Parts: sequence; C-alpha cells; structure tokens
Amino acid sequence: MRHLLGIAGWRRDELEALLDRAQAHLPGGPDASHVLRGRVVANLFFEDSTRTRSSFEVAARKLGADVLNWSHAGSSVSKGETLLDTARNIEAMGPSVIVIRHRSSGAPHLVARHVKCAVVNAGDGAHEHPSQALLDAFTLRQRWGRLDGRTVLIVGDVLHSRVARSNLVCLKALGARVVLCGPPTLLPPGLEEMGGEVTHQLDAVLPQADAVMCLRLQTERMSEAFLPSQREYSRLFGLTPARAERMKPDAPVLHPGPINRGVELSPAVADGPRSVILEQVANGVAVRRAILEACAS
Amino acid sequence: MRHLLGIAGWRRDELEALLDRAQAHLPGGPDASHVLRGRVVANLFFEDSTRTRSSFEVAARKLGADVLNWSHAGSSVSKGETLLDTARNIEAMGPSVIVIRHRSSGAPHLVARHVKCAVVNAGDGAHEHPSQALLDAFTLRQRWGRLDGRTVLIVGDVLHSRVARSNLVCLKALGARVVLCGPPTLLPPGLEEMGGEVTHQLDAVLPQADAVMCLRLQTERMSEAFLPSQREYSRLFGLTPARAERMKPDAPVLHPGPINRGVELSPAVADGPRSVILEQVANGVAVRRAILEACAS
Amino acid sequence: MRHLLGIAGWRRDELEALLDRAQAHLPGGPDASHVLRGRVVANLFFEDSTRTRSSFEVAARKLGADVLNWSHAGSSVSKGETLLDTARNIEAMGPSVIVIRHRSSGAPHLVARHVKCAVVNAGDGAHEHPSQALLDAFTLRQRWGRLDGRTVLIVGDVLHSRVARSNLVCLKALGARVVLCGPPTLLPPGLEEMGGEVTHQLDAVLPQADAVMCLRLQTERMSEAFLPSQREYSRLFGLTPARAERMKPDAPVLHPGPINRGVELSPAVADGPRSVILEQVANGVAVRRAILEACAS
Repeated sequence: MRHLLGIAGWRRDELEALLDRAQAHLPGGPDASHVLRGRVVANLFFEDSTRTRSSFEVAARKLGADVLNWSHAGSSVSKGETLLDTARNIEAMGPSVIVIRHRSSGAPHLVARHVKCAVVNAGDGAHEHPSQALLDAFTLRQRWGRLDGRTVLIVGDVLHSRVARSNLVCLKALGARVVLCGPPTLLPPGLEEMGGEVTHQLDAVLPQADAVMCLRLQTERMSEAFLPSQREYSRLFGLTPARAERMKPDAPVLHPGPINRGVELSPAVADGPRSVILEQVANGVAVRRAILEACAS
Repeated sequence: MRHLLGIAGWRRDELEALLDRAQAHLPGGPDASHVLRGRVVANLFFEDSTRTRSSFEVAARKLGADVLNWSHAGSSVSKGETLLDTARNIEAMGPSVIVIRHRSSGAPHLVARHVKCAVVNAGDGAHEHPSQALLDAFTLRQRWGRLDGRTVLIVGDVLHSRVARSNLVCLKALGARVVLCGPPTLLPPGLEEMGGEVTHQLDAVLPQADAVMCLRLQTERMSEAFLPSQREYSRLFGLTPARAERMKPDAPVLHPGPINRGVELSPAVADGPRSVILEQVANGVAVRRAILEACAS
Repeated sequence: MRHLLGIAGWRRDELEALLDRAQAHLPGGPDASHVLRGRVVANLFFEDSTRTRSSFEVAARKLGADVLNWSHAGSSVSKGETLLDTARNIEAMGPSVIVIRHRSSGAPHLVARHVKCAVVNAGDGAHEHPSQALLDAFTLRQRWGRLDGRTVLIVGDVLHSRVARSNLVCLKALGARVVLCGPPTLLPPGLEEMGGEVTHQLDAVLPQADAVMCLRLQTERMSEAFLPSQREYSRLFGLTPARAERMKPDAPVLHPGPINRGVELSPAVADGPRSVILEQVANGVAVRRAILEACAS
C-alpha cells in the first residue's frame, strides 16, 4: 500500500485485507513495538482535531515510531508558506509517513504527488476521511462477521460530512446497503450515483436499519443561511430513545464524535446499550496501526 | 492506589508511603524506565499549565511511558464536547492514567467515576492540587525528616489557591501546624474547620514559622472588585528581605510558581539562600513518578 | 562544547570538527539512538517555529532523547513569569540541553549564564541563528569540499536576518568571501567590519557568485514605514529565472525558509535544478544531531 488517500478506488479484497490486519492490532494482540522502530510519523494537521491526531499518535507509538506533531497554529503556515512547501520541508526531515488533515478537498492527494514518503488522509474538506470509514466498517464487522446484505442508515448532515462520503463508498464495497437520511438542504446531489439510497423520512426507514450511524451537525461549517434550527433538526432527525425503540433489537448506534448531545443524538442513546461509540474509538487505534504498518512497509 | 483526586481522605501512613516511594525516584536513583513501558499516560489539560504538564510528562517518560498531550486549545472541546465525552474518548484509546486539570472543582472526581483507568488531579478550580502538596511536603521532609510539631506559614491569596487547600490538609495530616495569613478578602471561611489557624498580621507570625510558603497572587482569577492594589498587597504581605530577616535562621521559603517577582516575593528572597523553589520543581518530578507508578500498578 | 550560543568566537577548526561530526549523522549513518538515551532535550520556543523546533525534535529523538516542548502559548510565560524563572524551572526538571528561541537578542546567553545544562540558541532576535549557519555551511561543503576562495552572495532582508548574520561569520571563518546585497534600508551598518562586502546592484554581482543565498523578506518584522513594496522588491532583488541564468552554471541557490514564493524567489528557481533548499532541511537534522551530541557530552 503506497498511500491511504481515500476509500474510492479500493477493491473489496484490499479493504478486507486491511481490516484483517487491524484485527492483530487490537489490545492483547502481539507486541508490535518493533514495526516502526526508529521511524518517524509526521502529523500535519491544518484543522483542529485532537481526537484523530491522538488516535494516529497512539497508533504510531505502539508501533515504536516517533511522532512529529506539526499543527497549523504557531507554524510557518501562519507565515504564508504553501502547503507543498510545508509538506516537502517535513519530508526532508525523513518521516516514513505523513498523516495530513486539511480543509481543502484533495490536499492529501496533492501532497502525495510531490513527496516520496507515504501519505495518509486524516480528513480533507468535505471529501474523504478513510481511516474513519475503515474503523466504522471494522466495528460493524466485529458484530456481524460480514456486511453483505446489511442495511446501514447514515443520518444527518451528509453535506458537510467526509465521514458519510467515505463510509458510503466503504460500506458499499463491503457488500452493505447504505441509506442516507437528512433534511434536503443537508443531502448533497450525487449520493445515488455512489450507490446510496436517499430518504428524508427517518421514522419510516429506521425499522429497516441493521445499524444507524448518526453524523455530527457541523454547525461550524454552515453559513447562516443554511443553519437549521437545532431544535427543529433534533425533532426531525435526532436519535431519541423513542426513535431507538423503532430500531431492530440488536442494531447498534455509531457516531464519529464529537457528539452534540441532545441535537443529533440523545444522551440516553449515546450512553445506552446500543451505542458502540467508544468501541469505535478503541478500534480506531487498531485500524490506524494497520494503516501505518501497511503504508510504511 | 486507585486514583489521586485530592489529599482529603488520605491517612497519614498512606501519604508517608507515597513520599517514601518518591525517594527512590530522585535523580541518581535506580533506572525505572521499565515501570510503565508500553503504557500511555494522557495529559488532559483544560487550563494552561506548561509547568505541571511538563513535570508529569517528564515523570511519565522516565518511567518508560508514552505521553499523549490533549490540551483545550485546538481540540474537540472547542467544538462543544462535554468533559465526560472527551474523557471517555481518551480512555477508549487505552491509557493507564489520565492526568487532568480543569477550571471546575470536582471535574477529576466526575471523570474518575466514569472511566476504568486511573485519574490524577493536576488541579481542579480552587479545590485541590494534590501533587503540588505532596511535592511541598516531600521538600520539607527532606530538610526536617518529620513534620511533627513544625509550623508552616502559608501567605497570600488563599482564596483562589488549590495549592493552599491541598497543603493545609496534607501538612496537618503529617503532623505540622499550619498558619494561613493574608488580607481578609483573600482568606475564605472554613480554614479553621480544616485545622488551620488564621491571621492577617504577617509580621507578628513570621518569627514562629519553620517554613514560609508564599502563594501566587492570582490576579487572573480575580474580578475587578476584589483586585487588591499590587503595591498595597506587596507592602502588607510581600516577603521582602527585611521580612525574611524576621524568620527563623534555617526556615526555608517555598513558592509553587510562577512567581510574581516583587509582588508576593522579592527577587532577593526568591533567589536567596532560603529559597527552595527550584528544589520543589526537581522534587516534583520524583513525586509525580511515584504517583504515576502507584496509580498505574 | 559547553553551549552553542552563536558562531561568533568559534575558531575555524572547531567549526570544521562540528561539521565533520555531522557527516556521521546523515541518513544511512550508524545508529545513534543510544547517544542521549534517557536524557531530556527541552525545546523552549518563545517565537513560532515549527520548522526549527521540529528539526531539533527529530534530531533529539534520533539520538534516543526524550523531548519536552515548552511553547510561549499556553504556558506560564503568559502569566508573566520572567525568562530566567522559566528557564530555571525547566532546568530543575533535569534536561541535558535547553534549545531556546526568543525575540530578544542575547536571551540564550542570559539563560546560559544561569543554568548548569547546555544551551543551544535556535534564534535570538535579529542576532544569531547558529544552527542554520552551520547547516548552510554543511550543505555548501557537501558540494565543494572546502569553502576557501568561494564567493557566497547573500541577498535580501539582511537587516532583520539572524540567518545572514550567523552565515556571514560562519562562512568567513571557513574561508569564503561573502557579499551581501539588498536595498539600502535593509542592509544594516557594520557588515564590512564583520568581513562582508556590500552592494545594492544584484545583477552586477550575480555572475561572481559561487552560491546565492536568498533571505526571506520578513514583512512580519517590519514597521509600516520601512515596508518596501513587494512588487518593487521583487523586481530589484527577486531571484527570477532570468537572473538565475546570469549565475555560474553550477552555483546553487539556498533559502532558509519559509519561502515567499514570487517575492524573494521565483517558484521556477525554488523548484529548479539549482535549488538545494530541501537538502538544507535534510542536512539540518544531521547538523542538529551533531550539535546536541556535542553539547550533551
């Protein structure tokens, strides 16, 4: 594996192989502290994200790597340096992998075309967030073994969500049916072409779902004009205990975090027996260990 | 030891055992780089503190642990995530210990009730700062052997000081007499109930002190109305060379840092022969090694 | 070697010995991960610099050291602590080396007089930036073997450039001729006394240069009154492809970064065959490994 820039373009067997590899990186698995011993993983984050950055950082250290954190604040980026100059400078310091998050779609791809080391996309604009999709698929595979024929319902702010986009592609590739549900203003065109089914009626579709993935209402990315009333949004699309009762008995609830409690997800559901949100976080470290291992080898 | 949330509730023998343990972690002591090898210590700081964070970070690394720094800036906290969600997310990444500083009293206790790993309070509001009290006690024990019968005088902004509160409890538990001195507006009620003696006359009480602990005037925590004139404060409660001469010959001067030079402490005293301020910092690493070792084992 | 505070005062054989030592720290050289095993290198940066900080961080880790990053944001510095108190506090935590960047000329020298550990100047005001000069000299030595009789042309904002100052001293000590070129307002007095030759006519001097070092136009350090028009500056002093054609065939182009593309340096030159800018970055890690090794031993 050269880079991990997105899920699009991956074959099913390649995705399955990576998820199989992650299995060995779960807590209690074999010691892997020699895998990247003496190697450097550079975290190049142009957007705030302690969650994803920390997950990659823990993953890298568990493989024995040193981690170089390069954030947008307090860096030469604030002196007007271009993305490519920053990336090439970091590359010149000799890392094996650059993990990059950027507000612009395609930024990791641009970097990957200009550096020799591996590049991992940790989120680019509203485009892709492949490691999140992989850890979500991993979490569902843990429960189901295979995803074939399962219906995954993705609810909420799909428009601003790279998580939704990467999950749609990943889950389809792994054989699942994907239904996307949200208000019309938060569902972008083109989802059907990617294999998704689109609906605006949450209550009608909930009983069909084998798993429900709630998306964060990303008010920080919305302009005033498109900002829905949180109360209205919550009334129509929030996953409340009453709605959760309409789900299949064993259907789990996922959320990529951070949660807007009481908006897209009720606290009782977030902390309830259906929630696998913290399993997602724990699996994230294992999946990212597998990603780093695959990219650096 | 499950957590270190505060000094309150600890028995004297437990405190002594921890201080004994810290002795082995002084520079020149046995190599301890295997103690937390392969383990993660997460620093979760919601308030600025390079000093305490760095001390825990050095302590953790000397024990062989990896350190995950999670600060309030640039994190999901700024996206509105709750304290508990943040803490549970970090826990899901598998740390052995979460070291937490928070502006709200009781925040570490709340976290400790909801995570399975150990929690260390690195300062919560104006409540407790147990590792600071332990390193202060350690520093005094280094000089005196035992604290029984000794008089420790704590001077200054007790109202905003979790350091004063934790020290009062810790020093009393170890057998010392504790006198607290400051302007009436900066001395909270209830100190006598905790075993302290209260006075507003610094010059009268100075000659009795076996050690003087100056507190930082925390102007950043004061509202305009309560903000004393620094000049006035310094005139009445600043430890000047003239005042230091009224102290017992061997009585040391402590300060938790950072110092407001010329306000609560004159430079000549801070840098003079009575000062053990840098010993406190050096001892802090040893005491925090002992704390992390005790919590993680 | 006790400290690295500046280039001024070093003998040629001392500089050569350090550059020889750096040779062994190039990628592919012998494993050096035991050199600072169990030691701490503290990065104390009062000015933004991910580039230099990261280079020292990677260098330190490759030597097996733990790295403590202490930045001006979120630290006790923002609570008004003095430079010396901060430095002495860090020292009390036991680092072998303190790497310091500060906006004030002489800050590292002040710290060095008050701490027992080694101090490395990572840039002080407009004064010195010795590790940058050493990596520049190293890069030129890689091409030329010896610098004797070579003409190095330093172009641009010399006034605000600690890089220019350290390079002038370093290159002269190593036997090179140094010509400094820029607009009169950006050339400080005293350069001739330091052995430099001064000119304002770039086109006239370009053909004599064996290497051209472009300086960053540091608009962030200029007051309005002195701020030249970037277009005018670029027209007179920017290294364009047309100008690069007037250089000797093999003469390399250096830049300390970050580049203002299209201002002091055209993209076609920055990314062209003459550019050794990324070699400088890569060499920077090797040179800083040698510096840390020399200071800590």
